[in-house]
Formats: sequence, structure tokens, C-alpha cells
Amino acid sequence: MKNKTASLLIIGNEILSGRTQDKNLNYIAKKLADMGVELVEVRVVKDITDDIVEALNALRKKYDYVFTTGGIGPTHDDITIDAVAKAFGVKVEAHPVALAKLTEYYKSRNSELNSARLKMAEFPVGAELIENPLTAAPGCKIGNVFVLAGIPSIMQVMFDYACVHVVSGRKIQGATISCNLMEGAIAADLTAIQEQNGDTEIGSYPYIYLGKYATSLVVRGLDAAAVKKAAGEIEAMIKKFHGDILDNPE
Amino acid sequence: MKNKTASLLIIGNEILSGRTQDKNLNYIAKKLADMGVELVEVRVVKDITDDIVEALNALRKKYDYVFTTGGIGPTHDDITIDAVAKAFGVKVEAHPVALAKLTEYYKSRNSELNSARLKMAEFPVGAELIENPLTAAPGCKIGNVFVLAGIPSIMQVMFDYACVHVVSGRKIQGATISCNLMEGAIAADLTAIQEQNGDTEIGSYPYIYLGKYATSLVVRGLDAAAVKKAAGEIEAMIKKFHGDILDNPE
Repeated sequence: MKNKTASLLIIGNEILSGRTQDKNLNYIAKKLADMGVELVEVRVVKDITDDIVEALNALRKKYDYVFTTGGIGPTHDDITIDAVAKAFGVKVEAHPVALAKLTEYYKSRNSELNSARLKMAEFPVGAELIENPLTAAPGCKIGNVFVLAGIPSIMQVMFDYACVHVVSGRKIQGATISCNLMEGAIAADLTAIQEQNGDTEIGSYPYIYLGKYATSLVVRGLDAAAVKKAAGEIEAMIKKFHGDILDNPE
Repeated sequence: MKNKTASLLIIGNEILSGRTQDKNLNYIAKKLADMGVELVEVRVVKDITDDIVEALNALRKKYDYVFTTGGIGPTHDDITIDAVAKAFGVKVEAHPVALAKLTEYYKSRNSELNSARLKMAEFPVGAELIENPLTAAPGCKIGNVFVLAGIPSIMQVMFDYACVHVVSGRKIQGATISCNLMEGAIAADLTAIQEQNGDTEIGSYPYIYLGKYATSLVVRGLDAAAVKKAAGEIEAMIKKFHGDILDNPE
């Protein structure tokens, strides 16, 4: 069976203005790779309903799963839930379980469950909740879309709950071989190795090590033996070019 | 005159596999904001020609400028130039200036300008070069698309050269006010302030400070006086709720 595909929709003006360095893409990418799910595309859009709806509808048709991050808090700029409902053509309504959780959470903190916070109990009709043990306000799953928080610590906890619904695949195997050769010197041989190892994906990433050019060669694939074979051929190639294997992949 | 719009297309399996944490989005976002150009959308795609072509054609129709990062090196996984040419329906050919630069660069390093490296002299027909004083291999501009390297240090130098072609707008003004109040407590008042200050964009970003909840309120807009007015109203609101203004925006 083929591994499932996924995409990520990052929602937030703060990422596009440069105020905030996104940390969720890299986290989700690594987790999905470990689960054998292929992250194929990421989009970042502003807090604008039509932009979110358009991106979400494009991604949910194209990929098995869509994860969204951001825009599910209590303030006026948190419009993700409304946009997701609009994308699915459904209404938003208070979810009794979310409402109970929020009531309990704010009661225990002697805080008021005001109308802004009540917004965090509202979800698209038909959505299932995704738990948030940190700050009570849940995310949700609707269709193949998982709606998660933007704050990394909360997103990460929600992601674990979301993954209950994700069908894992074969874990993507990887091998990284770094060497003190410039990628341009080995490119032709590397192309030949890639062509002879079509069941792997070989990437070449140049970097600087102690002021000298170096290259990390990354082999990825579903079959451990195929990855090992390609990695062995890369090591032999480095030897052929009188290069040294470095311990410090960039 | 309205500020120009921009988008960023990040090309690279290494970002989607989680191997590499992207640093270019945040850099470009900040630079564009300083130049008065609005970054509206970002996409990240794999090293797959059709995926690059589809994303590029969508973005270049929608926005005034598109910046791409990644995939312009000498190895088999560097396919951006071919994909850009395909998106524009033009051929790729050796550019004499790029060829001269690469010849000189590799001669000065006693390295061979082999066929893999010669690939870095090839550009879509009609493209203008974007200089790369670091490692000689240029980027290019074709139509409203700027094709830049993926390695941050090289991308940053190229970006400065690319911006010669970018029409600056009014710089986006910003003010950040952080306070020790939960965003849910102030959400209703903040909504009213946003509604009364439609020429600004107000964002609310909760965070944890010394184990307590805090919120950064960010006002952005083209008119400095409007930003100052909204910021003043936010400060008054914090006072009303008996909150303290914090010196440490998250």
C-alpha cells in the first residue's frame, strides 16, 4: 500500500510579516516522516477568510490529510474555524464537550468564560474534537482536515491526538553521508547513482565546514536495503574522488 | 499608490522531509515589510517539475512578485531553472555572462568547469541574471519571478540584487504592546479597537512569561499616526483591565 500524503496550511499574518519564525513546519515534517506519511506541500496564508478557504479546498482535494496551524484563539484575528466551516459548506455551532471543558478550565482558574472565550467552544457542524490538555480549548478534525493551534507547545500536544486518525505507512528510511568535496565535482557520478537507484531519492546539500566547501548527500526511501545500497555507492564514489567522509552533516 | 504584493515559493525536499529548518521565509518576510512590499502567500513544494510549474504559474498570476528559493545548483535534484522555463513556455540556454563568471571562478580555484557546473550557466531564454558574488553561479529574473539560491547566505546576497527590480512602497509601520493579561480577557475590547481602527491590522499573540500567561498585541499599518492611535487605545485598555505593560514581547 502506498504511503498517505499530507499537506500543511499555516495560517497567520505574523509569519508573513516576519514577526514570528514558524516552528511548526519542521516539527510536523519530522513527525510525519517518522509515521510514514509524505508531506508534499505547505502553504502559508494570511488571516483572510477567502484565502484560507481557497487554500484549504485546494489542499484537501489533493492530499490524504491537511493539517492547519493557527487562528483558533478567542480574538478577532482568530478566524480559522469559521473559514474551515465555510470551506466545507457547513455552519459553526457550540460543541457540548468543548463547552464543558472550557467551563471547567476557566472555573478552576477563577476566570470568566466570556463571549470571546465561548468562541473557542464553537466548531464546524460534524467536526470531532482534538484534545488540548494544556489550555482546554480543543482543535478539531473535519473530513481529512485537522485544525490545530499555532502556538508550538499546544500544536505539538494536539498533533499527537490528531495522529490517532492518521494511517501510518512505511517509515521513510534515511542515510546522510557528508564529505569534503564540492557538489559540482561529484554531480555527474551522483546523477548516475540516482539513476541506478530509482527507488531512492538522493539529495545533495552543499555547506561550509571550517571554511571549506563540503556536501551532505542524503538518501531517502521506503526500503532500508535500497537506501543502504545507494549509500554504499555514494561512499565508494567519495573514495574514488579522494574525498573524506565527515562526521558533521550540516 | 497601493503597495506591491509578493509571494515566496520554497523549493526543496529537505524542507518537507524535516531535514532542514527553512530560514529564508522569515528573512524575506522582514526585508519585504521594510521595503513596503506585502508578502501575501508562501508555498513549499518538492523537487518535482510539475509541482513547481503549477505553483509558480498560480503565484505569478496572483501577485506582483514571486521569489523562489532552492534548486539552482549543479546536481540532479536542482531542477528549478528547467521548471521556471517550462512555466514560462521558453527554452533554457547558456547565458554568456554567467558562463564567463563561472569560467573565471572555477579557473581561479583550479577547479574544473565540468558539465554539471555548466548547468549553472543555463537560464530561461529572456531571463536577466541576478548576481552572486559569493559563489559566482547567478540567480535570475524572468517576468515577475526572481529565482534565488536556497542556501541562506547566498540567497541573502542575491535578494539584495533582486530588489533593484522591486518597486518599494510605503514601509509597514508596527507597534507591539505586551501585557500580563490573557487574550481571552481583553478580546471583546480588542475587537472594538480593531473595528474603530480599520486602517490598521491588529494581531493578538499569547505567550508564557515567567510561568504566567501574557499577550503581545501587534498593530501594523501604512500610516504611522493610525498605528500610534490604535496602540494608544490598546495601552488604555490594558490600564482599564489593571494589567501591566511588559518589556518582553514574545
